[in-house]
Amino acid sequence: MKVAILGGGVIGGGWAARFLLNGHDVAVYDPAPEAERKLGEILDNARASLPAVYDRPLPPEGALRFASSLAEAVAGADWVQESAPERLEVKQALYKEIEPHLGAETVLASSTSGYRPSQLQELLKRPDRLIVAHPFNPVYLVPLVEVVGSDATPEALKTRAAEVLRGIGMHPLVMGCEIDGFIGNRLQEAVWRETLWMVKEGVATTQEVDEAILYGFGLRWAQMGQFDTYRLAGGEAGMRHFLAQFGPSLKEPLTRLMDVPELHEGLVERLAAQSDAQSGHLSIRQMERARDANLVALIRALKQRNAGAGRAVKAQEAGLAIPQTADLPVTAKRVIPPSWTDANGHMNEAHYIEVASNAADALTESCGVTAEYVAGGNSHFTAETHVRFLAELHEGDGITVQTQVLHGSGKKTHLFHRILGPEGLSATVEMMILHVDLATRRVSDPLPHVADALKALECAHSHLPRPDGAGAAIRDLTMT
Amino acid sequence: MKVAILGGGVIGGGWAARFLLNGHDVAVYDPAPEAERKLGEILDNARASLPAVYDRPLPPEGALRFASSLAEAVAGADWVQESAPERLEVKQALYKEIEPHLGAETVLASSTSGYRPSQLQELLKRPDRLIVAHPFNPVYLVPLVEVVGSDATPEALKTRAAEVLRGIGMHPLVMGCEIDGFIGNRLQEAVWRETLWMVKEGVATTQEVDEAILYGFGLRWAQMGQFDTYRLAGGEAGMRHFLAQFGPSLKEPLTRLMDVPELHEGLVERLAAQSDAQSGHLSIRQMERARDANLVALIRALKQRNAGAGRAVKAQEAGLAIPQTADLPVTAKRVIPPSWTDANGHMNEAHYIEVASNAADALTESCGVTAEYVAGGNSHFTAETHVRFLAELHEGDGITVQTQVLHGSGKKTHLFHRILGPEGLSATVEMMILHVDLATRRVSDPLPHVADALKALECAHSHLPRPDGAGAAIRDLTMT
Repeated sequence: MKVAILGGGVIGGGWAARFLLNGHDVAVYDPAPEAERKLGEILDNARASLPAVYDRPLPPEGALRFASSLAEAVAGADWVQESAPERLEVKQALYKEIEPHLGAETVLASSTSGYRPSQLQELLKRPDRLIVAHPFNPVYLVPLVEVVGSDATPEALKTRAAEVLRGIGMHPLVMGCEIDGFIGNRLQEAVWRETLWMVKEGVATTQEVDEAILYGFGLRWAQMGQFDTYRLAGGEAGMRHFLAQFGPSLKEPLTRLMDVPELHEGLVERLAAQSDAQSGHLSIRQMERARDANLVALIRALKQRNAGAGRAVKAQEAGLAIPQTADLPVTAKRVIPPSWTDANGHMNEAHYIEVASNAADALTESCGVTAEYVAGGNSHFTAETHVRFLAELHEGDGITVQTQVLHGSGKKTHLFHRILGPEGLSATVEMMILHVDLATRRVSDPLPHVADALKALECAHSHLPRPDGAGAAIRDLTMT
Repeated sequence: MKVAILGGGVIGGGWAARFLLNGHDVAVYDPAPEAERKLGEILDNARASLPAVYDRPLPPEGALRFASSLAEAVAGADWVQESAPERLEVKQALYKEIEPHLGAETVLASSTSGYRPSQLQELLKRPDRLIVAHPFNPVYLVPLVEVVGSDATPEALKTRAAEVLRGIGMHPLVMGCEIDGFIGNRLQEAVWRETLWMVKEGVATTQEVDEAILYGFGLRWAQMGQFDTYRLAGGEAGMRHFLAQFGPSLKEPLTRLMDVPELHEGLVERLAAQSDAQSGHLSIRQMERARDANLVALIRALKQRNAGAGRAVKAQEAGLAIPQTADLPVTAKRVIPPSWTDANGHMNEAHYIEVASNAADALTESCGVTAEYVAGGNSHFTAETHVRFLAELHEGDGITVQTQVLHGSGKKTHLFHRILGPEGLSATVEMMILHVDLATRRVSDPLPHVADALKALECAHSHLPRPDGAGAAIRDLTMT
């Protein structure tokens, strides 16, 4: 797909990164000075984080070019993502300028954080091609995107847009009607207004507000939304009981939002000074890196649990293939997440086994040990593993695992994984896996199609030299 | 410490669990029928989750008793936690009844989600002993607790309360003044009111609201609060730029909170029906288990990153010791988290190495390889590992690791870990670790005090029989 990104700031740059890293070609138009440098830094952040949420490789990165005009940027584009400044007349003028250059099937998507699609469509000759696709920062990691149309937007466009967005790993929330600020920003705006009052009246500092979120309901909301959370707060009687119990507090003056604080100079100064006191010791770049590394760790944790944002990643990952080369099966190709680093500043030893374990799963899955096969009551357990750590691996390193089948007949399968990093062979992991009956938890024969496939690999690999280090034991130093 | 829990519902039960699992004795008073059964279920949830966020053992569980009267519950208590129904007159009447039975130094803490301490203190003879300690559900996992006093509350009580709460792994947010709803609930209330409008007007369903939170700003807020998030949204120019850019939107009608929707029968029905459609296929118990397992996974991910809720756990963990027995060093004693389970329904192989890696760290730390030693440029890297998986381990299993030093002289240290689970020996992990200079990344001699300590362990263990399986290699099946 050819994508045009109009406006390359925090949001537009995030879109560019997400499309590029998912294999699409991107043309960026941004007249601001330093636009290329800033986009480069966003891309660096994205490259250091997005691939690390997947256990499989993303497609090869698309091509990036900077266009010198709007017309040049949108020429031939299948998808135009507008992230211009949040002023209606600016956006409308931009649409007027690009419309003559758009193809008949081109989708024009706006990142607006609040304007209704019907407002944005006003000056368009073909309003039916505009849709709102409102993302959340950092666009390359946070999966939510609100998809909003007006009465002039065909359902087919919403469906098509949602498909494209799911294809780049996002979670499209397709709204049934339009409203200022959509869902996410209205909720954040409610919190924002209340916090402004708190800081203005000296009830809390910016740091105290952030702590109340981080250590409390923010932690909860990463895995269960407000309604499900309150359903649980009602105890065994659920939502009706919760409403009966807490409904009356709606009468309490528990929010100042009946009015909005003036953002006069003194309040701006107080907010900025408190924010500086809280985080001024870190550069924006450092904070972004920490945020991204945290998000990768959270998304990976949720993925393991098949919850929240982890689900979006899991869904996309299921469609990603591991590219094969000619010789041995490539059983893993992935990027080391920041959260895999330990106190020694390199990948912790446990993750070598995690990688090898996933590689063994990929190999046996290719031989028929699929999710259905496991659901049918058969699987492999690992009986014994021998690892030699040969070179350090670091956050962001791309690794490839090749797996040789030393033995593949009967109940036992003997595997030898080579983990290849940027500097060549980083580790070897030798593994004896046993086929088991999941009901009895005892060793059993694989079903015939699996037995045949494993045997075929054993035969195919039998002509290869025995790997260096296979069958070795840890040397006893007390004997020397 | 002796703790009295008045009211054993979702909140009181959560408090009871947190105090008990942190080693305090707890007396519960709750006149509701089935109070014991309900508390038992909350305790089961807590036991299945809280210990799993730590890599070290919590202290032995305290003693639980049910009191048959308020007076009996509070007799001799150091800390009284009131979680009675949220009605001012109920709470005040309760305080009046218990006050004659409180010790001179007893802290009376209220879980109120909204009343100001000065309101709660009104009828007390000694108002200076009451404080608000407002927690978030599930109390045993979410670290935030808002500590609020009135003008009648001495600073010393706030400090003492914060210390007690930190001691049970919480993050006390000590407020400087009192306000209805404190911080967290005012912010949640703002979101709640806005979402009620959305559901009432058909803009979004309960599920859509939850998805907007989960996949978007909720995910962000688990690791960085609102002000830090917006600081980053301002790009390189930070908070001042953000305020200049988004301040004007405060004038937009982006929230309906100028008014509050009536919770009439139709709206209650709609909310409850949508919530049923969203989650009615799960029992409250199932949802609680999923929530807790998710929270454990998130907190563990944040702990590895030293961010948010993970910090509170890390801080408490630093003070937890691993109890030693007479023979070999106990290098780990911990509980298997739910997120360590794989498709085979047992602990995944990678976590055996994680456990062994932590155990090796605990052993070398006891020999002087402390955080300061590592900061000074010296550490150990693992060169080779051999694992034999002997019995399955499951979520919630308590495990103990004993480590034998087979060789401890010079640059190389040869360790043999035995992982003991509920059914005895679950795995052996043999490990060759090398002392390295972190600057050159090359093998080097340990500093003398570390060399001496490792040598001493080697000597102490030299009389022990050589462990079964040490020095073994994976057997080559093609040769047989």
